[in-house]
Amino acid sequence: MTAQAPTTPLGPGTDLDQVFELAQQLRVDSVRASTSAGSGHPTSSLSAADLMAVLMTRHLRYDWENPDDPRNDHLVFSKGHASPLLYAMFRAAGVVGEEELMTGYRRFGSRLQGHPTPVLPWVDVATGSLGQGIAYAVGIALAGRELEALPYRVWTLCGDSEMTEGSVWEALDKAGRHRLANFVAIVDVNRLGQNGPTELGWDTEAYARRVEAFGCRAITVDGHDLKAVDEALTVAADGRAPTVVVARTVKGRGVSEVADQEGWHGKPLPADLADRAVAELGGLRRLSVRGPRPPAGAPAPRPAAGPVELPRYEAGEKVATRAAFGKALAALGARPEIVALDAEVGNSTHVEDFRKAHPERHFQTYIAEQQMIATAVGMAVRGYHPYATTFAAFLTRAHDFIRMASISRITMALCGTHCGVEIGADGPSQMGLEDLAMMRAVHGSTVLYPGDAACAVALTAAMADLSGISYLRTTRGAYPVLYPPEETFPVGGSKTLRRGDEDAVSLIGAGVTLHECLAAADELAADGIHARVIDLYSVKPLDTETLAQAARETGALVVAEDHHPEGGLGEAVQSALATRGLAPALAHLAVTRLPGSGTSAELLDDAGISRTHIVRAARSVAGR
Amino acid sequence: MTAQAPTTPLGPGTDLDQVFELAQQLRVDSVRASTSAGSGHPTSSLSAADLMAVLMTRHLRYDWENPDDPRNDHLVFSKGHASPLLYAMFRAAGVVGEEELMTGYRRFGSRLQGHPTPVLPWVDVATGSLGQGIAYAVGIALAGRELEALPYRVWTLCGDSEMTEGSVWEALDKAGRHRLANFVAIVDVNRLGQNGPTELGWDTEAYARRVEAFGCRAITVDGHDLKAVDEALTVAADGRAPTVVVARTVKGRGVSEVADQEGWHGKPLPADLADRAVAELGGLRRLSVRGPRPPAGAPAPRPAAGPVELPRYEAGEKVATRAAFGKALAALGARPEIVALDAEVGNSTHVEDFRKAHPERHFQTYIAEQQMIATAVGMAVRGYHPYATTFAAFLTRAHDFIRMASISRITMALCGTHCGVEIGADGPSQMGLEDLAMMRAVHGSTVLYPGDAACAVALTAAMADLSGISYLRTTRGAYPVLYPPEETFPVGGSKTLRRGDEDAVSLIGAGVTLHECLAAADELAADGIHARVIDLYSVKPLDTETLAQAARETGALVVAEDHHPEGGLGEAVQSALATRGLAPALAHLAVTRLPGSGTSAELLDDAGISRTHIVRAARSVAGR
Repeated sequence: MTAQAPTTPLGPGTDLDQVFELAQQLRVDSVRASTSAGSGHPTSSLSAADLMAVLMTRHLRYDWENPDDPRNDHLVFSKGHASPLLYAMFRAAGVVGEEELMTGYRRFGSRLQGHPTPVLPWVDVATGSLGQGIAYAVGIALAGRELEALPYRVWTLCGDSEMTEGSVWEALDKAGRHRLANFVAIVDVNRLGQNGPTELGWDTEAYARRVEAFGCRAITVDGHDLKAVDEALTVAADGRAPTVVVARTVKGRGVSEVADQEGWHGKPLPADLADRAVAELGGLRRLSVRGPRPPAGAPAPRPAAGPVELPRYEAGEKVATRAAFGKALAALGARPEIVALDAEVGNSTHVEDFRKAHPERHFQTYIAEQQMIATAVGMAVRGYHPYATTFAAFLTRAHDFIRMASISRITMALCGTHCGVEIGADGPSQMGLEDLAMMRAVHGSTVLYPGDAACAVALTAAMADLSGISYLRTTRGAYPVLYPPEETFPVGGSKTLRRGDEDAVSLIGAGVTLHECLAAADELAADGIHARVIDLYSVKPLDTETLAQAARETGALVVAEDHHPEGGLGEAVQSALATRGLAPALAHLAVTRLPGSGTSAELLDDAGISRTHIVRAARSVAGR
Repeated sequence: MTAQAPTTPLGPGTDLDQVFELAQQLRVDSVRASTSAGSGHPTSSLSAADLMAVLMTRHLRYDWENPDDPRNDHLVFSKGHASPLLYAMFRAAGVVGEEELMTGYRRFGSRLQGHPTPVLPWVDVATGSLGQGIAYAVGIALAGRELEALPYRVWTLCGDSEMTEGSVWEALDKAGRHRLANFVAIVDVNRLGQNGPTELGWDTEAYARRVEAFGCRAITVDGHDLKAVDEALTVAADGRAPTVVVARTVKGRGVSEVADQEGWHGKPLPADLADRAVAELGGLRRLSVRGPRPPAGAPAPRPAAGPVELPRYEAGEKVATRAAFGKALAALGARPEIVALDAEVGNSTHVEDFRKAHPERHFQTYIAEQQMIATAVGMAVRGYHPYATTFAAFLTRAHDFIRMASISRITMALCGTHCGVEIGADGPSQMGLEDLAMMRAVHGSTVLYPGDAACAVALTAAMADLSGISYLRTTRGAYPVLYPPEETFPVGGSKTLRRGDEDAVSLIGAGVTLHECLAAADELAADGIHARVIDLYSVKPLDTETLAQAARETGALVVAEDHHPEGGLGEAVQSALATRGLAPALAHLAVTRLPGSGTSAELLDDAGISRTHIVRAARSVAGR
């Protein structure tokens, strides 16, 4: 087999016989790349090759030389394991070379990873955790329709197995609700999952009924009939409705030894079988593609930012950090890139303040936390700076989406309200007691936890200029303002609120426990015991220097946190001190029992993190 | 207003006029309880009172004196915030008294918490994170149909707002697929969510279309027409199909000042309004209920356990811990309470070994991790001991379900496979790098991480006898067996694999890094540096004593983990040492960079956790 000579690029006017040749090339390259790597998903690529060949020649409006052109369509491989197909498309587009494909795929240091990530300029989001790409696509489409007024379309290729993820239906519900006529999902119904037949097999009508019930238009099609596929995509892109093309396909299509066979998911073809497959597919080709270009005309520039007038609070005034967050976010809305995502709790999280000030940049996802994060990711792809907020406890619902967003290197701000037992009567289901562990372990994250309204305002504002995923943990109840409005709160810093030469112990808190530490210090002072008090508002990164100094100078530490003991403030402090070789006498107070309902004070005390317990622990570690 | 005298209990033969009186009593008690507590969700209770009054008098087959009777129907309040209504029902059933309701609701130390938990004997699962109760109900119903052959039915009351959670559709998909004719969801479509109108408002037909598309029977009904509700529930319980009763209701029904009004979600009525509401509702009542009893006849006893013959491996044999887990699980299947849950990755996780041995107790949830955990919870409610397994990375998808299961005090075993960068070519989307942080922070959890097949077998078996949520972290690749089959691995223990009087450093690993530590120790030994090697297979609880001894005796520690640095092995070790006041020279090697694809060896080295890096760190901390 030798490669054919290069030809004129295929494009919108190319007849379908040539598109078929392209499809076969995509298949051949999918087989070759995965066999050369010794791993990958060729059969999952073969089923969708016809769909993608038609898409890229005739429908995808994309300037391959300028992936950052804001007028480009988007293509999201929700079935990220079909990366051989995606990379074969990149080769056909001329942006990835033969050598890179054959020696880079799945290799160390290569950008052609096992599942697509935005290391590649033509990839918007990392996929590979199923049921997510389609959700990001909805977010991107929503930005196009409701924020940008740009005519780009968003195409996403889904596997049939992933249609059992609830997140897919959250996504389609939102596509339907917002009438995202720029959104097209193509479901590659190849009947076979990783482990045998899928739940719905080839019942394309069942998929179509679900799609229609969720408010989108469904088009069923034979995914190997190029003319039918072309017609389906033409209708899908008519700008009339969000559309799901349900394409019946054959896994392993084109390679008779594996087509429609079980046992070939995620397996490269052995070299001899790969040779036979390439021969059966008609050998190597060197077709290139120049599909439709994005429409002409420069997009309107984003409006200039107005002045940001952050809220100011008087010292001693009682304000909840969630309330200060809401007001600060509303003020930040003067910056046109700021958008706010809400999961039907805006009156509790105070995101409603933003909604009232900037309704056009507030998006209600209702109770669908996964789609809330996915929408944030999609808007970040389009250059917006999203703030997504719900109860800290319910952000756990979107943990996998947050994890994947970190792999996509997305910049977004998250706020989790109602943290800890402090919330009181609502009980443990509403208490965020795992969120610090979750958010600290996110790659590249910043974790912030203000103790008063002034700090909450400053950190909320700081998040608008941070890269990566930042997290603000806020408290339900109102507590006294501790800092003047001018106070600055650098990320990675801390505040020492009480300090003296005779300090016998350091009390370390954040959020509500900072106030408990202050009260404890007062009580200790009354007994002649001087206590340093440190506000650890920056949980990640941590102010190791101040902690080390406190350990050296006072020799005894109490850390109190309204969180489970694992992965939170206490362990952050302990690991920071360990890196300095410091082992002060240390008491770590955290929520170890399963809480119930009660008042904040009752529950803080029952959890062993109230002022009373801090005083007791301080006396113990200080030997007083 | 004074309470009426007690009457004959209402029951299946009671006419609907009296059932209406019960509904009004439930309303009155919902108002009174929440007003007395100063918090709660009365209006969300008022909308569903008619539905529940009909259910409990005529359809719910339940022996209130014997909540553990296995023949009882189950009732799950998926809208857990309607706890006033649920507790009012308990009062009507005579199992909660007037005083407890009026002085206990939402109070500290009371079992009548803000959202229901199984502290109450009539509550199976904690709810309050929306979209979960319906999913547990599907799991309970599945146990009834496919494991127990018992005629109990499972009723669940859902709010309309929670229907936007994807997990609801994962649940209904499974109800439809398994034809769970013992499952009835009642959706209280009261049109108003926490923050204004719901997405679908009163479009009950839209809900019905979705339900039908997902394979369940939908019945729409006026939720305040008692006769219509009774007929709907009669049909729903006819044993022919999984059914969703879509009931159009009015939030705040019966109290004209709040009925169908925005702004009343989650707010108790002020005392004066509460008085007017009780008057409008006809005043206090003391109706009691004795609804249908469960069918007679003792359930068949569970079959006796067969002998468990665990797999045995030869020292030096290369075996993946995920493979050993699968074989051990299959062997444990000789115990009839063991069930296995799979999310379409059984051939990768080796849960397929269990499926082959015990197909009747293997449940395929396809790619729907939330429902996988919910099914496990449901089966645990019925006394089974579930093992739910997927890739460690994808367990993050079910974080909120795992969190809630801990509040339900569920006993279940989870296994996360393919942890860390060790997996190689598939790339970061498939790598569990946050799972230790997530699982350690779960209340009451046990976290285990075997380094070889013998340990994996022993720990898999141990999990069958642990209480609470236990987690086994397994590795993709095959590594040498280190221990003889007779070795025991107590939870909370560790193994010291290398040890001598001259140890200058301790190398601490688990899973793949244990093997790297052993190789590093060999390399160090060749240079005359004696290194202790500790296998920290029990991550929570941790063997603090052995670590403290190593710190004291060797003065220098290296901890290497295939996980992000936050919340994992390293912080667990650091916090354990801190409690002993120990600060040895310590190097913590973990995955700090975003990984890509590559071989295991390449990625371990790139992450800085390979033998080379361990040797370097050991020399550094030991000053050699």
